[in-house]
Amino acid sequence: MSKGALALLIHGGSENWSPPRWRERFRSVCGDRRVALLPGDAIDPVDVRYAAVWKPAPGALAAFPNLRVIFNLGAGVDALVADRSLPKVPLVRVAIGDLTKRMTEYVVLHVLMHHRQQLYLLDCQRQRRWQPRAQWPAREIRVGIMGLGTLGLDAAAVLAGLGFRVAGWSATAKRIEGIDSYHGGDGLEPFLKRTSILVCLLPLTPQTRHIINRRTLSMLDCTGPLGAPVLINAGRGGLQDEADILACLNDGTLGAATLDVFEAEPLPADSPLWQHPNVIVTPHNAADTDPEEISKYVAAQIARFEAGGELENVVDLSRGY
Amino acid sequence: MSKGALALLIHGGSENWSPPRWRERFRSVCGDRRVALLPGDAIDPVDVRYAAVWKPAPGALAAFPNLRVIFNLGAGVDALVADRSLPKVPLVRVAIGDLTKRMTEYVVLHVLMHHRQQLYLLDCQRQRRWQPRAQWPAREIRVGIMGLGTLGLDAAAVLAGLGFRVAGWSATAKRIEGIDSYHGGDGLEPFLKRTSILVCLLPLTPQTRHIINRRTLSMLDCTGPLGAPVLINAGRGGLQDEADILACLNDGTLGAATLDVFEAEPLPADSPLWQHPNVIVTPHNAADTDPEEISKYVAAQIARFEAGGELENVVDLSRGY
Repeated sequence: MSKGALALLIHGGSENWSPPRWRERFRSVCGDRRVALLPGDAIDPVDVRYAAVWKPAPGALAAFPNLRVIFNLGAGVDALVADRSLPKVPLVRVAIGDLTKRMTEYVVLHVLMHHRQQLYLLDCQRQRRWQPRAQWPAREIRVGIMGLGTLGLDAAAVLAGLGFRVAGWSATAKRIEGIDSYHGGDGLEPFLKRTSILVCLLPLTPQTRHIINRRTLSMLDCTGPLGAPVLINAGRGGLQDEADILACLNDGTLGAATLDVFEAEPLPADSPLWQHPNVIVTPHNAADTDPEEISKYVAAQIARFEAGGELENVVDLSRGY
Repeated sequence: MSKGALALLIHGGSENWSPPRWRERFRSVCGDRRVALLPGDAIDPVDVRYAAVWKPAPGALAAFPNLRVIFNLGAGVDALVADRSLPKVPLVRVAIGDLTKRMTEYVVLHVLMHHRQQLYLLDCQRQRRWQPRAQWPAREIRVGIMGLGTLGLDAAAVLAGLGFRVAGWSATAKRIEGIDSYHGGDGLEPFLKRTSILVCLLPLTPQTRHIINRRTLSMLDCTGPLGAPVLINAGRGGLQDEADILACLNDGTLGAATLDVFEAEPLPADSPLWQHPNVIVTPHNAADTDPEEISKYVAAQIARFEAGGELENVVDLSRGY
C-alpha cells in the first residue's frame, strides 16, 4: 500500500523560497511519499492524508476527504482557526527552535535599537553630525513582554541576561525564574504601568484583538530614562489599532515603535507609518521559517504519527492558539 | 592630617555629564576628601594625591609632585601611555561591569543590524517597499572577535547564546569554553579566514596600529550566506586604516561596516564614511562610562589603596594596556 500523500498549499514566499523550492525540500525529506504543490500538481484529492500550509485560500483544505493532519508552516494560526470550513483534524503549529531563535534576534535587535537611540544616531549620521547623547544602563530600562509562550520566554531570558529589567504578561498565570509575571485582565494595568518598552508576541484571538490601543498605550510608564515609551509588535497585526498607535506617536503618548505586523499586509503604500520618523517598519519577517528545518520537522512528525505516536504542538481550537 | 586631594581633569563630556556634574558626583562619594576640577578650581598642586582623568591635556599630570595614582575614566589608555611626561605612578583603567555591559549591547546590536539586514530594510521603508529578503539562521554566521579581554569575552558569550558561531583572537593564547580561540601572528590568518563578521575590540598598541587594513580585510570569509564580510570596530580608531576600509567597501571586499571609532575624532564632516550606504557611523559612544558607577569605583579603590590594599586593573605600561 502506498503512503498517504502530502499536499503543499503555500501562498507566496520569499525570493529564495518560492513554492517550488518548498516542494523540492519536502520531497527530499519525505522518502517515497508523494508531495504535491497545489494548485498545479496533478493528484487525486482522496490520496491526500497530510497538508502543509502557509496562508492557504479559505476553504481549500475542505477538498481532501481523507485528510488526517494539517501542519501550519508558521507560528500564527489565527486565519486557519477562523476558517469555518477547516476539516476537523489536528492542526499542528510549527514551534521549532529555529523559529524561536529568529524571533529572539528580532526582539533583541529592536529593543537595543530603541535603548541605544539608534534612530537618532542614524539621523545624526545623515546630517554628518557627531553628537553623542547620554546613554543609560540597561538595568534602568523596564521591558515588558506580552505573551509568555515559547517565543516570549526565550526573548525574556536573553533580555534579562543583557541586564534589562524584564516582566511578562500572559492570559494565564506563569511562574518564571527572574521574570516578574503578570496575568489576566487584572494583571494588565500593573504590568503596563511598570513597562517602558512593550514587546507584543501574543497570539491573535477574539480576546486579544486590538489589545494595543490608546487605552493600553496610555498606561505605559513614561517616567523612565527613555521618556515616552516604546512599542514593539512582532505578534499579529490584528493585535494593534494602527490609528491609535499613530495618534499616540503624534501626541507623545508613545515615543517610538517597531512594527513587523499590520492590520493589512503588505502595509499599504499610503500608510503614514512608513515614513514616521520614530517608526521602524519591517515586512513581517521577524521570524521567517527555515524550509530546511521545517520540512524535516514535518516529516518527522508524520513518521511518528504513523507509528502511533503523539503529535506535538497541536493547536487548542477552543482557545485559538 | 587632611586626606590627599583628588584632581579631576576631564575634557568635554556628554550633554548630561559635563565636567561640573562629574565633580558633583565625585564629591558625593569622596566624603571629606577635597575634589578639584582642573583647570579652574583653586588647589595647591602639592596637595593632589589622586587624579581621575578623561583625555587630559598632554603634560597636565606632570604638575602634581605628590601624585600617587592616576585613574582613567574609560577603558582606552593609549593616549596616556604615549605621554612621555606621565608621572611614574600606577595607572588604573576603569573596567567595571557597567562598561562591559554597554559594550556588549553595542556589539550585539550591530552584529544583529547586519545579520538581520536592517540597513536594507530601512532603505525599503524609506521607499515604502514591502520586500522581505530571505534570512539565514545565526548558526550559519561566523562572528570573530579580536580582543578577548573583559569586553570581548562578555560579547562573545552573548553572541554564542544567540546561536552565532563565535571565535576569538588575542595576542596571547586563551582557552575559553564554547569559543574557538586563535592567537598571535600565526593565528591571525586562520582566524580571519573563518570569520564573516569581524568585531574589533583590541587595545591600541604599536603592534595593533592599523591592524584593520586591506591585507587583513581581504582574508575574511566571503563564502558565507552574508556574501561580502562585515567589520565592526568599537576598539580604537588607530586600529583601522580608513582609506583601506573605504576602498574595500567600494570594491566589494567588504560588504558593510559599523564604526564607532576613527583615526580623527570627531570624524571630519568631509569623510566619505558619513554617507556611505553600507556604513553605520556612531560617535564613539559604544561604551559610555556611567559617572555614578565610576565615581563609586574610584572612591572605593582609593579607600582600599589607603588601607594598604592592592589597586585593581593597573595598566601594564610595557604592553600598553
